[in-house]
Amino acid sequence: MVKIAFGRIGDSFSVGSLKAYLSEFIATLLFVFAGVGSAIAYGKLTSDAALDEAGLVAVAVAHAFALFVGVSMAANISGGHLNPAVTFGLAIGGNITILTGIFYWIAQCLGSIVACLLLQFVTSSATPTHGVASGMSALEGVVMEIVITFALVYTVYATAVDPKKGSLGTIAPIAIGFVVGANILAAGPFSGGSMNPARSFGPAVVSGDFSQMWIYCVGPLIGGGLAGLIYGDIFIGFYSPAPTEDYA
Amino acid sequence: MVKIAFGRIGDSFSVGSLKAYLSEFIATLLFVFAGVGSAIAYGKLTSDAALDEAGLVAVAVAHAFALFVGVSMAANISGGHLNPAVTFGLAIGGNITILTGIFYWIAQCLGSIVACLLLQFVTSSATPTHGVASGMSALEGVVMEIVITFALVYTVYATAVDPKKGSLGTIAPIAIGFVVGANILAAGPFSGGSMNPARSFGPAVVSGDFSQMWIYCVGPLIGGGLAGLIYGDIFIGFYSPAPTEDYA
Amino acid sequence: MVKIAFGRIGDSFSVGSLKAYLSEFIATLLFVFAGVGSAIAYGKLTSDAALDEAGLVAVAVAHAFALFVGVSMAANISGGHLNPAVTFGLAIGGNITILTGIFYWIAQCLGSIVACLLLQFVTSSATPTHGVASGMSALEGVVMEIVITFALVYTVYATAVDPKKGSLGTIAPIAIGFVVGANILAAGPFSGGSMNPARSFGPAVVSGDFSQMWIYCVGPLIGGGLAGLIYGDIFIGFYSPAPTEDYA
Amino acid sequence: MVKIAFGRIGDSFSVGSLKAYLSEFIATLLFVFAGVGSAIAYGKLTSDAALDEAGLVAVAVAHAFALFVGVSMAANISGGHLNPAVTFGLAIGGNITILTGIFYWIAQCLGSIVACLLLQFVTSSATPTHGVASGMSALEGVVMEIVITFALVYTVYATAVDPKKGSLGTIAPIAIGFVVGANILAAGPFSGGSMNPARSFGPAVVSGDFSQMWIYCVGPLIGGGLAGLIYGDIFIGFYSPAPTEDYA
Repeated sequence: MVKIAFGRIGDSFSVGSLKAYLSEFIATLLFVFAGVGSAIAYGKLTSDAALDEAGLVAVAVAHAFALFVGVSMAANISGGHLNPAVTFGLAIGGNITILTGIFYWIAQCLGSIVACLLLQFVTSSATPTHGVASGMSALEGVVMEIVITFALVYTVYATAVDPKKGSLGTIAPIAIGFVVGANILAAGPFSGGSMNPARSFGPAVVSGDFSQMWIYCVGPLIGGGLAGLIYGDIFIGFYSPAPTEDYA
Repeated sequence: MVKIAFGRIGDSFSVGSLKAYLSEFIATLLFVFAGVGSAIAYGKLTSDAALDEAGLVAVAVAHAFALFVGVSMAANISGGHLNPAVTFGLAIGGNITILTGIFYWIAQCLGSIVACLLLQFVTSSATPTHGVASGMSALEGVVMEIVITFALVYTVYATAVDPKKGSLGTIAPIAIGFVVGANILAAGPFSGGSMNPARSFGPAVVSGDFSQMWIYCVGPLIGGGLAGLIYGDIFIGFYSPAPTEDYA
Repeated sequence: MVKIAFGRIGDSFSVGSLKAYLSEFIATLLFVFAGVGSAIAYGKLTSDAALDEAGLVAVAVAHAFALFVGVSMAANISGGHLNPAVTFGLAIGGNITILTGIFYWIAQCLGSIVACLLLQFVTSSATPTHGVASGMSALEGVVMEIVITFALVYTVYATAVDPKKGSLGTIAPIAIGFVVGANILAAGPFSGGSMNPARSFGPAVVSGDFSQMWIYCVGPLIGGGLAGLIYGDIFIGFYSPAPTEDYA
Repeated sequence: MVKIAFGRIGDSFSVGSLKAYLSEFIATLLFVFAGVGSAIAYGKLTSDAALDEAGLVAVAVAHAFALFVGVSMAANISGGHLNPAVTFGLAIGGNITILTGIFYWIAQCLGSIVACLLLQFVTSSATPTHGVASGMSALEGVVMEIVITFALVYTVYATAVDPKKGSLGTIAPIAIGFVVGANILAAGPFSGGSMNPARSFGPAVVSGDFSQMWIYCVGPLIGGGLAGLIYGDIFIGFYSPAPTEDYA
């Protein structure tokens, strides 16, 4: 059951909410800087050779560590989403209002764009965009992103949202970062392993290449939404709109 | 001393138990998707070349991160086993009833099969199965799986089951994931480092190759059972059947 | 708003403060020994070949693990800075007095020098210094160090200084270490990814090469100072000088 | 000041003490199995080629993860030493009696020997022993092992022994494992990075090569003892013999 929360419009413009948008902007910026930066670093070290296993480990570990830290940076201010698919999955479960969620999306996408502009300035390199492997269909890419984003948002629910989480809450940011690292090690050579429309959006804007951007919106939003529906309905099972600050 | 718990049959069909089976199904599915996916990714990046150290690190880290997260996903609902050898080791110590344990096994194996089917769809690649290295005897493979699965289930007991665990319980899912990562770095080029009949079963079903499947049932079940006996008898030393939900 | 704390001069010479300087000296020494040591190890294993992805992972993981542990070593005695940019960022927010901060800087730089002297003795190898990649301008290097040091000090504030940190404080040392690991994976082939004037200073002294040292002072101090200003003013927003021992 | 604790002889033969020896035996066995196993795996994957960076990462991560888990396995029973240098460093600070410490040493060394015998059986491979790099003097090797074992035992004191440790105690096993991983990344190509006489002893026994064993006794014991003296005297500063079970 979808549990849309509307809330009072004024709440989305409170001082606390404005701080939350800034927090999402900064944390997403710093996450994308390290993540996309690691992909640019790979390109520099290998003269644009094909991805190899050492490069895949480097990129996966960079995303895992950077997302863990990014979630930690923002957890107590904005909940530490850094990802429109996470925000959407939480909205589906009624954990954030629609209007506030839209401002989160804007903050996350702006953070990603600024990160990529900064990277372009400091590295003088082209920004690598997400795209499916040659020979892979768009549908296969969408399904892969659905599965791995489902894993990410399910992790967010189990470790940070579920009121039964107990001491799991202490290690929630690590779990959230590392599930992305694990899935990049699996999905990297296929769909790239985005799980995050904002992570894909910044490079698309800076490089001007939106040809496959839709895959990285559709897949993550479906996967994140499904996780919110299933975890929220079956394992939490009641609706209690919590203030964002309590989420992680 | 084996401490079999039978319990009331109805308990295995309660709403809480059904949620636990679903939780094991989903968490095992997502763990196997990342783990087997990382092995498929390796194959794609190296044109089926022999395993090298960078590839071994990638596969070990993927399993370590994914099992840590998978255990976290399910810890408060089903205890976070994701592995028939863990369920068996806990049953030996009287921590789960036989009937409930059998349903756990079914949920774990189904999760693994669905993960491998999804991977086959999105990657269009053959699914790599577990098998011992050429020149290695089946007995050597069984002994290796006994030792490393003993380590895994001993870790589960020390960090998540033992009532004396204290603050160790907070980092238990990390320890459980990382002991698997460490042992894949040792066992990878020999037995593959399964420690988990369900992890081996999904690829066997999807590829239709059950030739060495018995090694990955016998070894892990003996190792997990021994750990349950030794830790339970010597270091816990009394029998107190706890509800599954309290285990981690 | 810059919140300079002066304090009583005597406080900087109390027994507790002298222990704090010693703690910073030892922890920085051990962090730099592992970090610079991993760069020397890389050189030994590759006959001075160009950096590759496996080497970058090795150096990034060594710094991530060593900084996490170094911060843990000193957290309850000196706050676990190990880095003049962190000390500066905390001074900007009024969390440490100017005079005590200067003694921290001295202890950190001495620790780094002794670490490099020990490495020179045990490895009989030249000490690699930080410098920007060929073709990269000094300004680009400064900007890169500003962004990544901002990330480091912002993490320190969010996980260890902010009174709202809650259970995040438990994993703060891991977050602080891993944000450095993530950013080395991005910045390694460009600016080297120092984020720490003391980390750069020891190798400069031992090798006698100070040609680019200013980049690794200016960048990290600006980045750390900005993080202190922004996090302190916006997300903490009031000034409450805490004794150093309470910081992490 | 060395604070030798003698205690009543009977205490070293209590049921609790016998369980502690068994716990050290099992945890050291499982740690060494993964650690030495990862070195054997490296040899198998590379046809005995020279160590490279990917192999160094594999071996360092295996030791880091396995020691973290091994310490967790034994923390609440024996304190989780797994290492004669740790036991010695704790005895120097008066945290364990001499006689009990000697039994710990025996249990640790036996665990290491059994691990190497099991590895020899399952892998049919020669067991790699610790030794300094060609061109490196024994003194340089000893000094390197002193510095890195000092780091290890200093970490044990700061995160697990110090009564001021607070929430650091929760992540102590991770810190203890990861400081070893970081230092192997630095010391691997030079002294091998043992930090642990028991870790070196098992391979020496099984391979019959004790030629450099003294380096891995002298270095770690000096380093561990120094850490116990310095941390115990300066940062703890009073003597309070705690029962072993309370240490971590």
